[in-house]
Amino acid sequence: MDESFFKDRYLDHQRAGELPSPQLIEDWLEGVLQFLFPEFSAVKFSTERAFLLQYQTNDLKLFTILDSLSSRLPKSAVDIRAAFEADLPAVYDSLSEDAEAILSGDPAARDRTEVVSTYPGFYALAVHRLAHCLCRLGVPLLPRMLSEIAHQKTGIEIHPGAKIGRRFCIDHGTGIVIGETVEIGDDVKMYQGVTLGALSVSKDMARTKRHPTIRDRVVIYAGATILGGDTVIGEDSIIGGNTWIVKSIGPNSRVYYRVPEKKQ
Amino acid sequence: MDESFFKDRYLDHQRAGELPSPQLIEDWLEGVLQFLFPEFSAVKFSTERAFLLQYQTNDLKLFTILDSLSSRLPKSAVDIRAAFEADLPAVYDSLSEDAEAILSGDPAARDRTEVVSTYPGFYALAVHRLAHCLCRLGVPLLPRMLSEIAHQKTGIEIHPGAKIGRRFCIDHGTGIVIGETVEIGDDVKMYQGVTLGALSVSKDMARTKRHPTIRDRVVIYAGATILGGDTVIGEDSIIGGNTWIVKSIGPNSRVYYRVPEKKQ
Amino acid sequence: MDESFFKDRYLDHQRAGELPSPQLIEDWLEGVLQFLFPEFSAVKFSTERAFLLQYQTNDLKLFTILDSLSSRLPKSAVDIRAAFEADLPAVYDSLSEDAEAILSGDPAARDRTEVVSTYPGFYALAVHRLAHCLCRLGVPLLPRMLSEIAHQKTGIEIHPGAKIGRRFCIDHGTGIVIGETVEIGDDVKMYQGVTLGALSVSKDMARTKRHPTIRDRVVIYAGATILGGDTVIGEDSIIGGNTWIVKSIGPNSRVYYRVPEKKQ
Amino acid sequence: MDESFFKDRYLDHQRAGELPSPQLIEDWLEGVLQFLFPEFSAVKFSTERAFLLQYQTNDLKLFTILDSLSSRLPKSAVDIRAAFEADLPAVYDSLSEDAEAILSGDPAARDRTEVVSTYPGFYALAVHRLAHCLCRLGVPLLPRMLSEIAHQKTGIEIHPGAKIGRRFCIDHGTGIVIGETVEIGDDVKMYQGVTLGALSVSKDMARTKRHPTIRDRVVIYAGATILGGDTVIGEDSIIGGNTWIVKSIGPNSRVYYRVPEKKQ
Amino acid sequence: MDESFFKDRYLDHQRAGELPSPQLIEDWLEGVLQFLFPEFSAVKFSTERAFLLQYQTNDLKLFTILDSLSSRLPKSAVDIRAAFEADLPAVYDSLSEDAEAILSGDPAARDRTEVVSTYPGFYALAVHRLAHCLCRLGVPLLPRMLSEIAHQKTGIEIHPGAKIGRRFCIDHGTGIVIGETVEIGDDVKMYQGVTLGALSVSKDMARTKRHPTIRDRVVIYAGATILGGDTVIGEDSIIGGNTWIVKSIGPNSRVYYRVPEKKQ
Amino acid sequence: MDESFFKDRYLDHQRAGELPSPQLIEDWLEGVLQFLFPEFSAVKFSTERAFLLQYQTNDLKLFTILDSLSSRLPKSAVDIRAAFEADLPAVYDSLSEDAEAILSGDPAARDRTEVVSTYPGFYALAVHRLAHCLCRLGVPLLPRMLSEIAHQKTGIEIHPGAKIGRRFCIDHGTGIVIGETVEIGDDVKMYQGVTLGALSVSKDMARTKRHPTIRDRVVIYAGATILGGDTVIGEDSIIGGNTWIVKSIGPNSRVYYRVPEKKQ
Repeated sequence: MDESFFKDRYLDHQRAGELPSPQLIEDWLEGVLQFLFPEFSAVKFSTERAFLLQYQTNDLKLFTILDSLSSRLPKSAVDIRAAFEADLPAVYDSLSEDAEAILSGDPAARDRTEVVSTYPGFYALAVHRLAHCLCRLGVPLLPRMLSEIAHQKTGIEIHPGAKIGRRFCIDHGTGIVIGETVEIGDDVKMYQGVTLGALSVSKDMARTKRHPTIRDRVVIYAGATILGGDTVIGEDSIIGGNTWIVKSIGPNSRVYYRVPEKKQ
Repeated sequence: MDESFFKDRYLDHQRAGELPSPQLIEDWLEGVLQFLFPEFSAVKFSTERAFLLQYQTNDLKLFTILDSLSSRLPKSAVDIRAAFEADLPAVYDSLSEDAEAILSGDPAARDRTEVVSTYPGFYALAVHRLAHCLCRLGVPLLPRMLSEIAHQKTGIEIHPGAKIGRRFCIDHGTGIVIGETVEIGDDVKMYQGVTLGALSVSKDMARTKRHPTIRDRVVIYAGATILGGDTVIGEDSIIGGNTWIVKSIGPNSRVYYRVPEKKQ
Repeated sequence: MDESFFKDRYLDHQRAGELPSPQLIEDWLEGVLQFLFPEFSAVKFSTERAFLLQYQTNDLKLFTILDSLSSRLPKSAVDIRAAFEADLPAVYDSLSEDAEAILSGDPAARDRTEVVSTYPGFYALAVHRLAHCLCRLGVPLLPRMLSEIAHQKTGIEIHPGAKIGRRFCIDHGTGIVIGETVEIGDDVKMYQGVTLGALSVSKDMARTKRHPTIRDRVVIYAGATILGGDTVIGEDSIIGGNTWIVKSIGPNSRVYYRVPEKKQ
Repeated sequence: MDESFFKDRYLDHQRAGELPSPQLIEDWLEGVLQFLFPEFSAVKFSTERAFLLQYQTNDLKLFTILDSLSSRLPKSAVDIRAAFEADLPAVYDSLSEDAEAILSGDPAARDRTEVVSTYPGFYALAVHRLAHCLCRLGVPLLPRMLSEIAHQKTGIEIHPGAKIGRRFCIDHGTGIVIGETVEIGDDVKMYQGVTLGALSVSKDMARTKRHPTIRDRVVIYAGATILGGDTVIGEDSIIGGNTWIVKSIGPNSRVYYRVPEKKQ
Repeated sequence: MDESFFKDRYLDHQRAGELPSPQLIEDWLEGVLQFLFPEFSAVKFSTERAFLLQYQTNDLKLFTILDSLSSRLPKSAVDIRAAFEADLPAVYDSLSEDAEAILSGDPAARDRTEVVSTYPGFYALAVHRLAHCLCRLGVPLLPRMLSEIAHQKTGIEIHPGAKIGRRFCIDHGTGIVIGETVEIGDDVKMYQGVTLGALSVSKDMARTKRHPTIRDRVVIYAGATILGGDTVIGEDSIIGGNTWIVKSIGPNSRVYYRVPEKKQ
Repeated sequence: MDESFFKDRYLDHQRAGELPSPQLIEDWLEGVLQFLFPEFSAVKFSTERAFLLQYQTNDLKLFTILDSLSSRLPKSAVDIRAAFEADLPAVYDSLSEDAEAILSGDPAARDRTEVVSTYPGFYALAVHRLAHCLCRLGVPLLPRMLSEIAHQKTGIEIHPGAKIGRRFCIDHGTGIVIGETVEIGDDVKMYQGVTLGALSVSKDMARTKRHPTIRDRVVIYAGATILGGDTVIGEDSIIGGNTWIVKSIGPNSRVYYRVPEKKQ
């Protein structure tokens, strides 16, 4: 091989800062989800103490991850870990409501166990609510690594910065993209292939709202694309499949395409 | 952590019913696919007996899985296992035809080995035909867990309840959603991002036909969305990409959108 | 089980040619990516020699893979391996430019480390540029197995035959399909769900150009479908989301759908 | 490397007959021991059916092992497997007595659980009783591979051909060697470093009794060496530590060395 | 299989109390040894915090182990864990002296690194000093499981109850047996195959001193057997190889066998 | 925990030099043994090239190990590796003779396959001949780590410095200790528990001959202890079990203990 090329790669490796181990992050995520939902867990705990030890062992993984990012954290790893733990009950309550909403909304769902253990939309949302929590605490990189784990597993991409209301229902979900400054109200339902994205993407807009706002009780059918930071979809609106929306839509609207022409 | 929150999680874990291990299910599925198609198998068997033992060892995994669901099975695990085994040759024949259909339909496919070992559409269909078989035998949860394995790997989501005819061809496939009460005829071809879904979703419709019927020899291009239990796409029709269809289409139809306007 | 069915499966296994082990291929790919980008690597190397040994150990994996395909290679495994190594610096330079382009184009991207370690579009492109290199060297099956690894992980499917110019930017990406005879110029940007596909698919077209050509600086928004071997999208054009394009578009064009009708 | 040397090694590998996998043998052995003694098992079974499935899965491993040796078996693998299973209850009863004998004989032993889970003498005996059973059924190689597993783990080497009576007590045990044609009565106790070996070793003696006979209730202290096929240690004798015995000893004997000289 | 036999085994498994997982115990032991001696550790820690997290994660394993034994502990798992941690510095100091003593006593030893990483005598002693510490704290079963790990690895068996002075030197060591109530002074050196055992073993002697006392600066050569609770080997004595000692020996003694007879 | 104790451990870890990974060493050793003897290998190679690649991959491990020791090597890692490879055929020939000698000497051995795959004496010797080769090339630490792997597995401890002639036969072997400056002639046979050790051990004797010399065709029975650098056992002598020898013995001698006294 070209020697200087090889040398350069070696120097790159020497210069590279430490990153948290992807395997450790995956293990910790799995551990939190197993703690919150027995459906994700293959283990039965014979005592409450054993359950606590399992929790603590997993918790040390978060600490290890935060520690490897410590130079870039806004607060100490200790404080962030504590704040995350304090938020966990609220995250759990929110996810319980999400599971119930999916169950009551999908005729194919048999029970909550099936929703938690087999619905990719629920999994993606569970990861998002955890990642969003860490994002709000100012943790860099980790939230994005978490959301990519869910993305790879489900095909659903939710930027950890996105704000999502209660009882959010994703049906099927593959291909969904939800951008960093999206805001979604309560009781929203969304199908596969929906994009909530940015209209234009100059780098200096990093701190402005670039993605749409979805109000309460909106339904967005498969393949709809809604773009732009000023775009607001009003309460109780229904957005038809495969639509392309770049301007705000008032409350109670129904937006759809005409049925296509047929040629026989 | 909040003590009552922790206590509640522990009680949840104590109350949770037994579920079949996801790892065991994945292992079994891999084993069946390796049995049916040498392309999935890294092992060479030196004797027929060794091959049989491999089969039986894998078969015991299915038994273990069924056994952990036994309280919810319509028949004994023994009977269901036997019925599944009896169906296996027909599943194999069907998948052989599927592979041939993909090979003869895709100019990029070099040979059957390439189709079986690298086409996500074939993989998703192979898992579906096995899951559908278990679904018809009344096995709960397992068929959905199988279809989610394929969904995670391929981005193709086929509900195990869907009825799919012979020589079904999926090209690319990411984003395809095929609902629980879909019926698909023979020699149908379908591209990525196609949805065969429900129009409305009130929970009391769980036992009604909510998803469309696709007749023989229909071709559905990328991104088409076809919705509704009464919607029938007639024989030999071609559905254009990104179309949105909520009513029946007669045989031999061609449905497409006009070419979009250009602005220079 | 039906005896003749079982016997036939056994004979299938006996007849099956040797295939490179999927696990070995995955390990090698991971090794190359770790060599090129420290962001993919959890290991620190204390000496340049250790780094070299790591490289060589991984390189032997490629040799093993090529060797198992040797009867189907156009040149010796030794020659192909050498040619691949000679191409690696150019592949690296190209990927470095890709990472920079993503970073400067996406307001949500914080730094190059985040792009390399969490952007599925970058990962898919990295795998593609390696697979394309092997494809040009005439290696069968392996390039497709590589592209499927990336497809499974990212939902982005790029056929290893596709020719892609410099500074290619994929945003989000789930659902993207790029066909075998696609040609893409420099500085092209593409969003999720875009298809660059074939219009018709008769098997005898295997050696003809069946997929579109995209010229420099084109932007293609989410869900656009561009089909056909004669279809050329001219320089500096913008293709709107969810469009369906089967004819050539001149340079500097903007193609979009009208905003859909609203019904209140 | 020397080319002809390398070529010869390759030809050796090609010529080599199939051997049962050491890993499979270890797994099966662990499985049988876990079946017989919950102390060896980390898993709790929620139903009797699950326990049975575990047993059957392990049993298939034995079948696979026997099958790979089939050309050298005196009966079919099916018959040998069945005969082994039929012997298992007797082996278990015998081992239960052994554990009780160790417990009642060693003041340091707290309970049967401690004996089964931590006494190397019990482990070596458990493996021996299984290996001896297979040895009597005419299985080649496997019994020796089993006894070597125990030898490596405990430093106790018992040839699978040795006949050992009931309630055999090994204390400590490291360095014990028990030869192929040894016969040991009931209620014998033996300490570490004891050899029951052959006096002379010409190859044509393979089918003659070359190792000693130990009658009921004999105690043999650490480091004693007893050699020869005609050597019989009579009932109720005590053999002192570090003794060297090559002739028969009558019943009720006590054999010891004088206390060594002291030099001050 | 015999049905009642199978049923009995199942009931045995149901009745069996919980035991700490052997794997967890092995992991914890490895973790403590790695913490104390970098020679046992393959990992470099980039920060002190990372090192602390590693320690704490391992510490939780001890807690989990103690917890599974909680019904049989004399104090709470919390208290025992704390007491063990408080003892750790003293254990470390003691082991440091042991390593130095081995290094200065064995001409074949090159440096402390070689002693720590390759001397089985040091390994066995390291495990013993940890196990003895837990033994004194009243922990059941675990100390014996630890000493068996060392026994399996080194062939050296030291009962966790044995009291061993400072700068203890084991050379080679295979076959050494040191009983429960042994007391060993400072600067003692011992070769392979030495037994410090009990003379007689009636079960009611469990709480009496059954094993010998070795005073300061005694050297015991290979294969010596010293038995009995009243047997004391006086200061500065040398015990020759293969001797058999059942009575006390005064200080400064040299005990040996005559050189054996030769027959030409 | 005591803070300064913890801090000191951390500093120890920081100061510790790099050591070759024990896992890598074990993997390499297994690879060499599998290369030399198909009995150790579970894999069949379909082509000579595949076999070569396997060899080369393993060889890189040796290189990696040597590299991590490079500051302490007398020659470059490249040269040492080449010298080792050049010695390999002679090592193989020697081991082939050893296997034949064991087979023809032990009535219990059925065939060469059984000897290679189940005889601990053969395994220990195989590891020794490799370790001795590296020892002569001046490699530090690694030879001792190899001999400890064999010691742990077999209970046989052979210092890598020991010089051992052709057709060396170890029967059983547990407890054998062979010191650093031992010299053993051709056709020697040795049983378990034999020590060839040093008489006295002052540290300044590191470079002198401290261990005995055993001439051709000597047989040494179980438990014999032969000590001292000036001690020579003459040709064709037989050393009885449990003997203690500290002076030279002429050729053709027979050394034994009287049969012990009996007390009835």
